[in-house]
Amino acid sequence: MPEHPTAGDGESFDQTARDAVYRAIFSRRDVRSHFLLDALDDAVLARLLIAAHHAPSVGYMQPWNFIVIRDALRRQRVRDLFLAAREQELPNIAAERQALYRKLKLEGICESALNLCITCDRRRSENSPLGRWHNPQMDLYSTVCAVQNFWLAARAEGIGVGWVSILDTLALRELLQIPEHAVPVAYLCVGRVSEFAPKPDLESRGWAKRLKLSDLIMSETFSGPGEAALKEMVDRMA
Amino acid sequence: MPEHPTAGDGESFDQTARDAVYRAIFSRRDVRSHFLLDALDDAVLARLLIAAHHAPSVGYMQPWNFIVIRDALRRQRVRDLFLAAREQELPNIAAERQALYRKLKLEGICESALNLCITCDRRRSENSPLGRWHNPQMDLYSTVCAVQNFWLAARAEGIGVGWVSILDTLALRELLQIPEHAVPVAYLCVGRVSEFAPKPDLESRGWAKRLKLSDLIMSETFSGPGEAALKEMVDRMA
Repeated sequence: MPEHPTAGDGESFDQTARDAVYRAIFSRRDVRSHFLLDALDDAVLARLLIAAHHAPSVGYMQPWNFIVIRDALRRQRVRDLFLAAREQELPNIAAERQALYRKLKLEGICESALNLCITCDRRRSENSPLGRWHNPQMDLYSTVCAVQNFWLAARAEGIGVGWVSILDTLALRELLQIPEHAVPVAYLCVGRVSEFAPKPDLESRGWAKRLKLSDLIMSETFSGPGEAALKEMVDRMA
Repeated sequence: MPEHPTAGDGESFDQTARDAVYRAIFSRRDVRSHFLLDALDDAVLARLLIAAHHAPSVGYMQPWNFIVIRDALRRQRVRDLFLAAREQELPNIAAERQALYRKLKLEGICESALNLCITCDRRRSENSPLGRWHNPQMDLYSTVCAVQNFWLAARAEGIGVGWVSILDTLALRELLQIPEHAVPVAYLCVGRVSEFAPKPDLESRGWAKRLKLSDLIMSETFSGPGEAALKEMVDRMA
């Protein structure tokens, strides 16, 4: 682990280091199925939390908290919440996709080494809400940046992370005693894994395909045509 | 740039590669002041967009679009929006901090190589809102994951990124012709920089300090005591 904060420099990384960053980004997966029984060392978890804590935050607010959940019974109850929520979500899925939806593995709550709930304390910038007056949801976005830092560092450590969003928030708040001023942003299953799948599960199971990136690029305005050279390049490289 | 999607494996990265990922995370900055006049190659921008496009997304929805803004006049108008918004935000800042707030450099809209608005198309999962029934904001969070991927890849490429959130969203929507079904999540200033500062600007300018990470860790429930070994470890390492 390099010292942090690292000394500033304007240089790009050398090729090997740059490739490592892209490898983490491209091979990161939302893991549900490949958790091993291994415990997670506190030293590794500490590195991942330090990575999360170095996320950008609006007005340097650092709105996040990290609830580490290890207790088997509590996790069982979170899993019950998931199962109930899945039943509630099912009728909202198109009829012809419901059978596939039921077969998808969408969480690893009990079989991962531990769970982590990352919350956003909305009061932390009281008195100096720099950058939040027009966009009060920026603190939630900052918290998501911390989630993504955690996720990428975890990939580099060989640790799988799965984000469970099929949960009733009020019930989760009650179970984890989260007060009103905090928002549970991400509920994560975390642990060492046997593999990171070559493709996202939802792609290999036929739920959806990766979109063509050039179709998502616009020029100057929403739907603005242009950027032909850039679009050609992303399609060639992707 | 490694091939993507990379073949799956459960291995952690070797020490050098792991250090590179942490270096990107620790030395990434919200850049406002050190943009160079250099243009940004399409090849580099393409790599950053591919990194963003490999973010996790709820139900594999990939809700993002990328509006590339180069036009000087349009950027001038965005900067005018910033200046107006800053005046509106100022009275909400504690009186004794307003002088410092005024002195902070909070954007590099016109002097960066280009601007990028990353939006979230809220309709893209119509018919299969997997993972969004209980938490409809998950698509916005997915879009933020794309922002953070872009930001970290940019750091590895020596490209600075600054997120401008002091903008009136309605005015920005009008200027960029963003339709109702899309949300402008992040407005970014992007370009090669002379340096990445050793610390966040808001820390070196005395706006706020980095919080003590152990104070942000909780056990089993919000405010739950415990995790003594982990807390000791993060304080030793941080």
